[in-house]
Amino acid sequence: MVTFQDSGIVDVNFGQNVTVTRPVNLYGCAIGDGCFIGPFVEIQRNVNIGKRSRIQSHSFICELVAIGDDCFVGHGVLFTNDLFRTGSAARGNPDLWLPTKIGNGVSIGSNATILPVTICDNVVIGAGAVVTKDITEPGKYMGSPARLTGSA
Amino acid sequence: MVTFQDSGIVDVNFGQNVTVTRPVNLYGCAIGDGCFIGPFVEIQRNVNIGKRSRIQSHSFICELVAIGDDCFVGHGVLFTNDLFRTGSAARGNPDLWLPTKIGNGVSIGSNATILPVTICDNVVIGAGAVVTKDITEPGKYMGSPARLTGSA
Amino acid sequence: MVTFQDSGIVDVNFGQNVTVTRPVNLYGCAIGDGCFIGPFVEIQRNVNIGKRSRIQSHSFICELVAIGDDCFVGHGVLFTNDLFRTGSAARGNPDLWLPTKIGNGVSIGSNATILPVTICDNVVIGAGAVVTKDITEPGKYMGSPARLTGSA
Repeated sequence: MVTFQDSGIVDVNFGQNVTVTRPVNLYGCAIGDGCFIGPFVEIQRNVNIGKRSRIQSHSFICELVAIGDDCFVGHGVLFTNDLFRTGSAARGNPDLWLPTKIGNGVSIGSNATILPVTICDNVVIGAGAVVTKDITEPGKYMGSPARLTGSA
Repeated sequence: MVTFQDSGIVDVNFGQNVTVTRPVNLYGCAIGDGCFIGPFVEIQRNVNIGKRSRIQSHSFICELVAIGDDCFVGHGVLFTNDLFRTGSAARGNPDLWLPTKIGNGVSIGSNATILPVTICDNVVIGAGAVVTKDITEPGKYMGSPARLTGSA
Repeated sequence: MVTFQDSGIVDVNFGQNVTVTRPVNLYGCAIGDGCFIGPFVEIQRNVNIGKRSRIQSHSFICELVAIGDDCFVGHGVLFTNDLFRTGSAARGNPDLWLPTKIGNGVSIGSNATILPVTICDNVVIGAGAVVTKDITEPGKYMGSPARLTGSA
């Protein structure tokens, strides 16, 4: 037997003047005033996105991620909450998940991968970067693993 | 003249208790008991996926890939079968494609890229990694190209 | 208030014998004779794609990108036009965008990221590569950042 579910928009707390381009899979999350959500995006439950932030096409934002105001999440940006610390995937055991907190005014380039980290305000992450550590200083970070390469 | 096709589920051999979140594009493949397939996933013909494996959103699994039991394929994981060995894409000539075989209990982090390789049981691939060579020893592999970084 | 838009095909100038697998989000672009466009693809306005090129699933092609004839754009390939030069995203100000020009016979591996560059004819880009500079010599380029690794 196969159970088919359909992507959609369920239990989402939208602010004012939000634009969403379907198809998307959004559930149990909060999306602030003036945000834009592009097509082919999934945002999981308990995610919180601030005001005037843009989540571009093909991005995935998992549980335990919070994103501030005036952020730009490029196309195909993938967040994570599971470091496979037990030697395999947590498979839905949230005790093994770690949180991610993105400040305000953060711009993340397309195809970046964000491990569970904290990123301070006014940071630029280059396209294709893999962010593996907390970022506590504004600036531009590029590469795999991402390193500070200049002022923002 | 433009020919429009629609993504869907065609000629898929599903096991018991499989869950699929549409939209997906699945055709000519076999998906074992207890698997989960997330949204925005494409799985091509002749792919074989074992039991209790999870294929998360935005992933692409091409022809000539076999995945074992109890695997976790993260979000946006992209498999390949064409190394462009003739100096350009094979363009549908399967004689130029190479196979990929993933063992049991393998966890692949989001946004990883898997070239045509064999990966043994109980391997962890970090998020954003690019796997370019066979992996014959259990452990954790990260980076571009992926290298052994610790025990799994 | 939330504004919902739906992905679709709007104001696209198709050549002869084009195949498109929906869902896609294509608008204001030109797609040449004999092209194939896979599912979960977005192509923005003013993009020009030559003849017999293939744009595989999950790829995103942004404004100011031109792609030649007989190209292969793999799965999940992401183009960019914004280097965040002001310290944050251009947010729709096209004066801050930069163009990308891809020659003829270029094959781009899955999950590659293409910054705003010019790539000459007959180039191969490896899967997972991040192309950060112009490529003026045919050959094979891999890694992050992409470097010449052999003849094509």
